Amino acid sequence: MTVTFLTPVQDRLQDVEKLMRSQAEGNHPDLVSAMHHLIQAGGKRVRPAVALLTGGMLGADPDRLLNLAGAVELLHTATLVHDDLIDGALLRRGSATLNAQWTPAATVLTGDFIFARAAKLAADTGSVTVMQLFAEALTTIVNGEITQYFRSKGIASREDYYTRIYAKTASMFELASEAAAVLSPVDDQTVEMARRFGYEIGMAFQIVDDVLDFTGEQARVGKPVGSDLRQGLITLPALYYFDAHPNDPDMHSVIERNGHNRSQLDRLIESIRTSGAIALALEEADEYVQRGLNLLEEFPYSPERDALADLATYITRRNT
Amino acid sequence: MTVTFLTPVQDRLQDVEKLMRSQAEGNHPDLVSAMHHLIQAGGKRVRPAVALLTGGMLGADPDRLLNLAGAVELLHTATLVHDDLIDGALLRRGSATLNAQWTPAATVLTGDFIFARAAKLAADTGSVTVMQLFAEALTTIVNGEITQYFRSKGIASREDYYTRIYAKTASMFELASEAAAVLSPVDDQTVEMARRFGYEIGMAFQIVDDVLDFTGEQARVGKPVGSDLRQGLITLPALYYFDAHPNDPDMHSVIERNGHNRSQLDRLIESIRTSGAIALALEEADEYVQRGLNLLEEFPYSPERDALADLATYITRRNT
Repeated sequence: MTVTFLTPVQDRLQDVEKLMRSQAEGNHPDLVSAMHHLIQAGGKRVRPAVALLTGGMLGADPDRLLNLAGAVELLHTATLVHDDLIDGALLRRGSATLNAQWTPAATVLTGDFIFARAAKLAADTGSVTVMQLFAEALTTIVNGEITQYFRSKGIASREDYYTRIYAKTASMFELASEAAAVLSPVDDQTVEMARRFGYEIGMAFQIVDDVLDFTGEQARVGKPVGSDLRQGLITLPALYYFDAHPNDPDMHSVIERNGHNRSQLDRLIESIRTSGAIALALEEADEYVQRGLNLLEEFPYSPERDALADLATYITRRNT
Repeated sequence: MTVTFLTPVQDRLQDVEKLMRSQAEGNHPDLVSAMHHLIQAGGKRVRPAVALLTGGMLGADPDRLLNLAGAVELLHTATLVHDDLIDGALLRRGSATLNAQWTPAATVLTGDFIFARAAKLAADTGSVTVMQLFAEALTTIVNGEITQYFRSKGIASREDYYTRIYAKTASMFELASEAAAVLSPVDDQTVEMARRFGYEIGMAFQIVDDVLDFTGEQARVGKPVGSDLRQGLITLPALYYFDAHPNDPDMHSVIERNGHNRSQLDRLIESIRTSGAIALALEEADEYVQRGLNLLEEFPYSPERDALADLATYITRRNT
């Protein structure tokens, strides 16, 4: 499908990529090439698009907004680099991870470097509030990873799930939209509405990701079907499935982690894939998106507002 | 020896520790205990003392200065956590490293979390310039680590050495003193003088560290004698030794990394330890300190200025 929400910011997203690339300049050559590889392998730039469109809609200064968009996408990139190391992932979006090519030490340091440059761009917005939001988002993301690392395996709890996807994804969408509003000549109430918009679509985005983990094709998603559950991570489709089938013995084995085997897992993943749980999870994602669209209605009309609506709608329609 | 430079900031350093500890609050319990362990095992707090004394001397707002001091020490702590992981170090200052107790994944994430909180405290100074200095210092430190990781083994070059110790240590002292001046009601020239003071004593600090790596007792320093050279890292004492003994075959073996063995290394370390190279390196550190003391003369008298002079003098007198 055509990604229409990118049209109004296509040129600006090119500027963001250029800015991101330039952050490696003057540093060690291996670092420069690693950063170029990572930026090349980047996704659809949804997060910087949210920042650019929100700021465009609210009248932010274009240069400061560009720094914010670069900061958000570099922060996202840095967390992926350390994530892949922690998970031992060898592929991301079908490309080899840094982790697959480099030693753990080089991967840790490259992630640190990208954090440093993200912080630099956040400071270059010239706003102390943006810096504070940036640091708080980073704290939330890392604390979420630590919590997931130490605790969340095999926990079938909605509360735990929503906390997790907020930390993992919605916090960064929230940063993108809220900080863009902070850089705009608008009142606190508008900043809060922008923040909530980012929150709603960020939650939807991660729920759809978790659905695609069950329904996507391995080649397109770049990882095996049901990979979350295989790692003991209970996501929304599994929670809905569990609600409807509280006595499924395979599900119990996974939750209690009592030595379930590969064929039990395959069977459970297939059961979830073909159950009503998928539709229920997508419906819930749609509700988040709808709340986001309702918030947008509160803003005056602009082409950027339309593009944000397209972006929000796209989230539940995408297949990667 | 008594560490007199700490006297005027003893209470404030307690506040810094409290602020650092409070940064873990509300997060995962394992993270809280890891941070407390790291803060407990901390050193003499020379970096935050530089920030507090410089800001005290120049009239910085105490609350903003406290945030800066906490940011600097947390940044230092975070880099140590990732360093120990990268080096596989099991001890630091005689205490078990996080790395010795935790998995690499948990160690990476804890370091990331501490970076996040350091960035938060830097933002809480309320100064965009301080944030930019903070991000630049982090960039310099990480790029230095990457360069060292990829390249600097077995390189006997002064230029390389000075670049390395600037990145590793002086950049953070410079951040402490320059950012403290930025938070003070002083002109740009005074900020620049404060920066240079931090630079000079930071360079001296690392040179003395590198000397202690040869002359220190294992029990006190917490690592084997000559550990830098054992890892192929050529520091100032080795450079002076090489100047005086250009044909020492053991030194050549180490530089060319052509399969030198343990007994060659032991012999070379003993040769350096007992040579004039140690005194020459300490003399050079003294010259850095002297330049720092000369800069201090330019500032009006205050108890903090005296304490900074004590601190600078202490650097070349210390034995840990």
